[in-house]
Amino acid sequence: MKKIKIAYIGGGSKEWAKVFLNDLAQAKGISGELALYDIDLEAAKRNQKIGQRINKLEKTVSQWDYQVYEKIGGALINADFVAISILPGTFDEMMSDVHAPETYGIYQSVGDTVGPGGVIRSMRTVPIFEFFAQKIKEYCPNAWVLNFTNPMTICVKTLYDVFPEIKAFGCCHEVFHTQDFLCKVLEEEKGIKVHRNEIYTDVTGINHFTWFTKAKYQDIDLLKLLPSFTDKCFETGFNENGSPDLYLESPFAQANRVKMDLYKQYGILPAAGDRHLVEFLNHNWYLKDKKTIDYWKFALTTVDFRIELREKRIKELQLEAEGKKDINLYTSDEEAIELIKAILGFNQKVSNVNMVNLGQVKDLPIGSVVETNAVFTNDQVIPLIAKPLPVSVKNLVLRNANNIETLYEGIKKRDLNQIFESFMNQPLLDGLTIVEAEMLFKEMIENTRTYLDQYFNIDQYLNN
Amino acid sequence: MKKIKIAYIGGGSKEWAKVFLNDLAQAKGISGELALYDIDLEAAKRNQKIGQRINKLEKTVSQWDYQVYEKIGGALINADFVAISILPGTFDEMMSDVHAPETYGIYQSVGDTVGPGGVIRSMRTVPIFEFFAQKIKEYCPNAWVLNFTNPMTICVKTLYDVFPEIKAFGCCHEVFHTQDFLCKVLEEEKGIKVHRNEIYTDVTGINHFTWFTKAKYQDIDLLKLLPSFTDKCFETGFNENGSPDLYLESPFAQANRVKMDLYKQYGILPAAGDRHLVEFLNHNWYLKDKKTIDYWKFALTTVDFRIELREKRIKELQLEAEGKKDINLYTSDEEAIELIKAILGFNQKVSNVNMVNLGQVKDLPIGSVVETNAVFTNDQVIPLIAKPLPVSVKNLVLRNANNIETLYEGIKKRDLNQIFESFMNQPLLDGLTIVEAEMLFKEMIENTRTYLDQYFNIDQYLNN
Amino acid sequence: MKKIKIAYIGGGSKEWAKVFLNDLAQAKGISGELALYDIDLEAAKRNQKIGQRINKLEKTVSQWDYQVYEKIGGALINADFVAISILPGTFDEMMSDVHAPETYGIYQSVGDTVGPGGVIRSMRTVPIFEFFAQKIKEYCPNAWVLNFTNPMTICVKTLYDVFPEIKAFGCCHEVFHTQDFLCKVLEEEKGIKVHRNEIYTDVTGINHFTWFTKAKYQDIDLLKLLPSFTDKCFETGFNENGSPDLYLESPFAQANRVKMDLYKQYGILPAAGDRHLVEFLNHNWYLKDKKTIDYWKFALTTVDFRIELREKRIKELQLEAEGKKDINLYTSDEEAIELIKAILGFNQKVSNVNMVNLGQVKDLPIGSVVETNAVFTNDQVIPLIAKPLPVSVKNLVLRNANNIETLYEGIKKRDLNQIFESFMNQPLLDGLTIVEAEMLFKEMIENTRTYLDQYFNIDQYLNN
Amino acid sequence: MKKIKIAYIGGGSKEWAKVFLNDLAQAKGISGELALYDIDLEAAKRNQKIGQRINKLEKTVSQWDYQVYEKIGGALINADFVAISILPGTFDEMMSDVHAPETYGIYQSVGDTVGPGGVIRSMRTVPIFEFFAQKIKEYCPNAWVLNFTNPMTICVKTLYDVFPEIKAFGCCHEVFHTQDFLCKVLEEEKGIKVHRNEIYTDVTGINHFTWFTKAKYQDIDLLKLLPSFTDKCFETGFNENGSPDLYLESPFAQANRVKMDLYKQYGILPAAGDRHLVEFLNHNWYLKDKKTIDYWKFALTTVDFRIELREKRIKELQLEAEGKKDINLYTSDEEAIELIKAILGFNQKVSNVNMVNLGQVKDLPIGSVVETNAVFTNDQVIPLIAKPLPVSVKNLVLRNANNIETLYEGIKKRDLNQIFESFMNQPLLDGLTIVEAEMLFKEMIENTRTYLDQYFNIDQYLNN
Repeated sequence: MKKIKIAYIGGGSKEWAKVFLNDLAQAKGISGELALYDIDLEAAKRNQKIGQRINKLEKTVSQWDYQVYEKIGGALINADFVAISILPGTFDEMMSDVHAPETYGIYQSVGDTVGPGGVIRSMRTVPIFEFFAQKIKEYCPNAWVLNFTNPMTICVKTLYDVFPEIKAFGCCHEVFHTQDFLCKVLEEEKGIKVHRNEIYTDVTGINHFTWFTKAKYQDIDLLKLLPSFTDKCFETGFNENGSPDLYLESPFAQANRVKMDLYKQYGILPAAGDRHLVEFLNHNWYLKDKKTIDYWKFALTTVDFRIELREKRIKELQLEAEGKKDINLYTSDEEAIELIKAILGFNQKVSNVNMVNLGQVKDLPIGSVVETNAVFTNDQVIPLIAKPLPVSVKNLVLRNANNIETLYEGIKKRDLNQIFESFMNQPLLDGLTIVEAEMLFKEMIENTRTYLDQYFNIDQYLNN
Repeated sequence: MKKIKIAYIGGGSKEWAKVFLNDLAQAKGISGELALYDIDLEAAKRNQKIGQRINKLEKTVSQWDYQVYEKIGGALINADFVAISILPGTFDEMMSDVHAPETYGIYQSVGDTVGPGGVIRSMRTVPIFEFFAQKIKEYCPNAWVLNFTNPMTICVKTLYDVFPEIKAFGCCHEVFHTQDFLCKVLEEEKGIKVHRNEIYTDVTGINHFTWFTKAKYQDIDLLKLLPSFTDKCFETGFNENGSPDLYLESPFAQANRVKMDLYKQYGILPAAGDRHLVEFLNHNWYLKDKKTIDYWKFALTTVDFRIELREKRIKELQLEAEGKKDINLYTSDEEAIELIKAILGFNQKVSNVNMVNLGQVKDLPIGSVVETNAVFTNDQVIPLIAKPLPVSVKNLVLRNANNIETLYEGIKKRDLNQIFESFMNQPLLDGLTIVEAEMLFKEMIENTRTYLDQYFNIDQYLNN
Repeated sequence: MKKIKIAYIGGGSKEWAKVFLNDLAQAKGISGELALYDIDLEAAKRNQKIGQRINKLEKTVSQWDYQVYEKIGGALINADFVAISILPGTFDEMMSDVHAPETYGIYQSVGDTVGPGGVIRSMRTVPIFEFFAQKIKEYCPNAWVLNFTNPMTICVKTLYDVFPEIKAFGCCHEVFHTQDFLCKVLEEEKGIKVHRNEIYTDVTGINHFTWFTKAKYQDIDLLKLLPSFTDKCFETGFNENGSPDLYLESPFAQANRVKMDLYKQYGILPAAGDRHLVEFLNHNWYLKDKKTIDYWKFALTTVDFRIELREKRIKELQLEAEGKKDINLYTSDEEAIELIKAILGFNQKVSNVNMVNLGQVKDLPIGSVVETNAVFTNDQVIPLIAKPLPVSVKNLVLRNANNIETLYEGIKKRDLNQIFESFMNQPLLDGLTIVEAEMLFKEMIENTRTYLDQYFNIDQYLNN
Repeated sequence: MKKIKIAYIGGGSKEWAKVFLNDLAQAKGISGELALYDIDLEAAKRNQKIGQRINKLEKTVSQWDYQVYEKIGGALINADFVAISILPGTFDEMMSDVHAPETYGIYQSVGDTVGPGGVIRSMRTVPIFEFFAQKIKEYCPNAWVLNFTNPMTICVKTLYDVFPEIKAFGCCHEVFHTQDFLCKVLEEEKGIKVHRNEIYTDVTGINHFTWFTKAKYQDIDLLKLLPSFTDKCFETGFNENGSPDLYLESPFAQANRVKMDLYKQYGILPAAGDRHLVEFLNHNWYLKDKKTIDYWKFALTTVDFRIELREKRIKELQLEAEGKKDINLYTSDEEAIELIKAILGFNQKVSNVNMVNLGQVKDLPIGSVVETNAVFTNDQVIPLIAKPLPVSVKNLVLRNANNIETLYEGIKKRDLNQIFESFMNQPLLDGLTIVEAEMLFKEMIENTRTYLDQYFNIDQYLNN
């Protein structure tokens, strides 16, 4: 039994903690301490109680010592692994990020990665991650750091830029869902039923705008099954988890129509949910107006819905913490614990990961953060060379990657002018004039300045 | 007196031939044959007659033997230099290029470089330049080739791609005009009056979307004079050749307001006319609608106007050829003859030029065609390393450079799908849905298919 | 049971076939045809008989249909995998390769990779591999090709250069032995006994001149164990398979003294046998004279010894084929079959491999052949990004990699002058004058011209 | 008349000052202050007096105010230009640099660039140039810095590495002499007599190991004249300044036999003196022993000779300073003043220059210092893209460039181990064993430690 310490920044999490605690409890071969840190101390304590209850479950094979720390240093010191999963700012700021642009006719389905929402969220996030990177450097420079926070690319970029020796990577499950989709395609077209771990997908791009350049089950080319599959399913849409019309009721759902449409145009398959993909593309392509969005069958996730969901979730967690509700262990499809075990030398694992580009994606800038496969093994995470993107797709991805690099540098220099240059070059804002873009930018900064004032000279900029 | 042969492809030219013959007549130290070739044989003969009249003028210092050839091989054989200045297709096709997109709300001020017009024009141009490159390879592989045809980048790319050993470069005077503008700035701000040859501008980018990263007169930084200058002139505009409102009557005029606006945002100065610059940028920025265009004070050059101008010009030329109108030699500001003399070893000259990127522009793809300074000297044209662009400008230029590379490859492969991918990614078309973009693309192809059918499988594509 | 066809070029092999047939017989889950092709038909038939006997052994779990083909096309057609393991030329030519330079004071421990022997052997090998690549393209373009022939780098380069879409890689077990060495170090220093599959080594460089930039067992840094280990073992030497003085009797043995010496100087560990390493370095460093060689405790493998060994081996094989000698299956440490099964989707495997550099080694030329780790999985072999070499080691490797690229291009162009430029720049020949180098080069070409005359204009060169 | 201040570091120079003062006196259009700084104050004052005498000469067109400063800051403050021409250490250290290796059979013809002498000299030089760079940053960050000191590459690298915004370049006249040689070739072969400014040579490589990839007079290819020329002159040799046997009496002379030999092998012409070229190549090629050296007809410049020359020179200078010897202005072939005037905007000039590689030499590392052509013009020095080297020459140059980069980094980090790695990889030392190389290295460090002790931990290293 290998004893380790995992620090959990954002340990008061209402959503992702559930999976993490569940998977930890079932992790054979490892145990130790889970050190919870959160600016919401009560939430961390709630998760501590839930953890302690899980320890007593019959199905639990691995016991963890759940500790809550009021200071980040306490959580980090001697940590072998650090998981970061936070909300930068509150839902109030996110309300502005997602919905303020609607006045200008700009809809966002998620609003946390790129587009106007992604830019403003990044402005709040980078300074926080600068702080995390410094603390990790100070307290646990040899720890492995797993980031789950969005905007993923910007978070991982900040960690490496502030502390270049950091052993960090970003995990995202969007790719898994597209793998599930491909397994369904294999089943539909060939009658072969496999788990996504049995296929191999060559993934490349940037987080939430990744692409499968190749996908194989043994020597069956899964991408070549798509023409026949889309002939049948493009019109109605296809949801690997249920009805293609699920999006009408579930604000996280999509029918893969955008994905299939892009496949038809470009010949390779995007590897993220439609709600994410559309935010990297010209505003008029898939997000022009409500009618267009409905045509493509994906949901806009409102912040009101997120708030409602959170309230419901907190109630549940409270009941679980107080022992008024049963906790049931289940088999998740997340990989975090498996990756940790691979790094500890238990097994070897290939999975998709967000890391600094050392040449694994030849078409994107060296030093930018990219998402490709990597090998996880004895104290190492090593990226694989990704296959090249078709030239037109490369152009689309590169435009966004360059925007993000420009944005990051602008935030790092606290240079609002350069940040705005990235903002006005967002594909989602291509329908605005420069003057409109500037009005919107100032409005969104004004709305969220509680989290910006200490880092940027907002007054000067707004009065300019 | 050095004897040379210059082949002139498009030697029936109505506009550019005037300057060329004028400058040749005044070129001390060189003489020889000017071999005119044009699909409009009569026009070539007209220029021949004009040339023969120029030979007899008193101010003429250099006699030329004006020959007209019915076949391109005759003009090219033994040529030391080849000048290419043609109109790909006719004004009928250009009418569609420039005006067909207006139905979709897309205005173009020139329509011959990028945007929908530039893409379709490229489809006509590449096959013609493939033919030129093969003929040059066959008849005069050691000749220096000067291209003056648009779309410049695509033309030069084709020449090098078909015949990599070619000694070709593309000349464009847009940069000269911005140098004139800077000389005016120097005069206004410092009271120093100089010719543009006395300042040094570091130029980089792609044709018609070039930028001055540095501009110096001795140790005076000309770019640093701009804030004070624009404070005075931005509102009214400033035209280095006359009134800022000249654009109201002259369809080639502009008031440099776009240029100054971009300088204010990005800190470096675009080095092409405003009419060209706006076509590389989001449709809504400067070309949103007639009101916006008027606000920025530049003209849309209609094809009707071009036709009218040509008619007028032909009448003049006819009179000149028949000796019914006097021909007066004048001092032009074009450099073609000076460059030819530098290549012959008469002098050494640094000027801007379009050539394949061998590393002179580190931020643009190796192998793409870029515009930078080069040294012209004994049988050599050697590009200079350009200073890097600010990151946000680099993003804008790179997007267009990548689009052009994608377009060129698509045309080379006769792949209408890839050509469309470049079309739909044009900044000028960012306001269209994919479906609208495809409708427009098919319409424009249909309109101009006379020049496309022999190269592309148009029927199949349109019926798809 | 997955049915496959494996073509074996060089199927009359006397050495490597033994392992391959042994491992095939024990390969659960696959069976099919092994198609033997060899210019020595009798040898192929002998192996066929041995294979048929193996089929009947009790321990055999996988039956194979052993077929002999007189023409290469028959062996290749419909093949799923192609293994290439040949001797380019005969031991007569190798006699010259290895021993002719001794007259000039140049000793070679192997003589088949770089140095004078490697260069001349490459001249024989490239044309043969050009032929193989063309035949593979013709008969089985989708087959996976495993090369085991030396000079490895040159062989793999030829395959990819002639047929860029080929799915080829080169396998070499030198790295495995250094992994075994590291396992011994771990055992000596920490008392932990593991198989080499349980450690992870980050490997980079070119074949036979590879380096471990990192080596980990869980979180134990194996390279950090070396100072203490070498303190104890450097003087006497250390052989992971037996006595450090084994080299006195076994012409393939070595005592890792060169390896440890290079580690002491450069801080990272070479990952090939000492006999190979020394051939990439200045002649005076480890191969100056017999005394020096003895000091470093490695053997020079004479060609006489190789001939003797082969004779002995043929007798054994004959007895095995005729059923006069028992065949015993055993557990080999080779990975070829395991890699084949990984490619078929049975499992996922990370191992070292020779492939074209797509960016996996950033310090070596893109397009050259490098050795790094790769993931073997469903119809894919994907290189991993290797860690950078220390700058001084990079210089040593790059010099050799550039020499090989120059050599390959020279052979491809049949340009004896360029081949000589690579020859005279070999580290092993740095002690010769240019005139001496040229004499030796001509001598070695003369000696081996039977295999060169059909490809190169030898007469003209020698008489020049 | 433009008034400027030029700071002259090493202003007590005995040799180069003569040319500089001579050229300044004849520089139309500029005058001002020449600020002399030297650790040998008397020598600076002597040059001051000579300058003041020059001011009174009839032929003098430009008066200069010659000032001597005891502190470097005084010389640098407000300087527009800084010239650096120093001897790092004294001739005592140079005696060891050049002659200590002779015990090991290693002859050096110059010993100040690469090889054992170059490495040890670099160890003395880098710390001095670190100091200069810091002072320039402090006192005159906008000044243009002209370096004339060897080792040129290392000096320029240091300046840019310490102060990246520096406007520095290195001037070397070796290229001029090879241009003179080519002019002689043109005269011999074609009967055309021109000055080197009338031909155009494309130069690339690193200082003292540069190559002409192309050389043209008008459209005459000068390199193509060489086969016929070398047929006639290779055996006897050819010295553009006199008899090919001049080397027997003049220790700076050479007969271009090495240059012609390298041309015959590689097809392009080295552009430095033979004495320099041979030091970048394998020891046995041209410097094997005295007999070989004599065969190739170049001189070894002993340090005794340099000392003698200096003594003679000082006597002359003393007489000139005291007015006991006439000073005559003459026409030099140096370009420093011409370059200064070009930078001031008087004219535009293309010349060879040592600068940081921004892409002008694609085959050498970005960031290393390379020698190519550049344009000198209004406050700018801009490198030109150089033509690629043939692959075998590239290998030779790259090996040396990488060695220099490794050396520089080693000195920067004060890491004697890494410095030794560069030392042992010098082509001139390829005949030594590692142990011999280490003995020699320690000996040479010991000999020159007066200048090393304050920067390196010599004791610890020597006792290790």
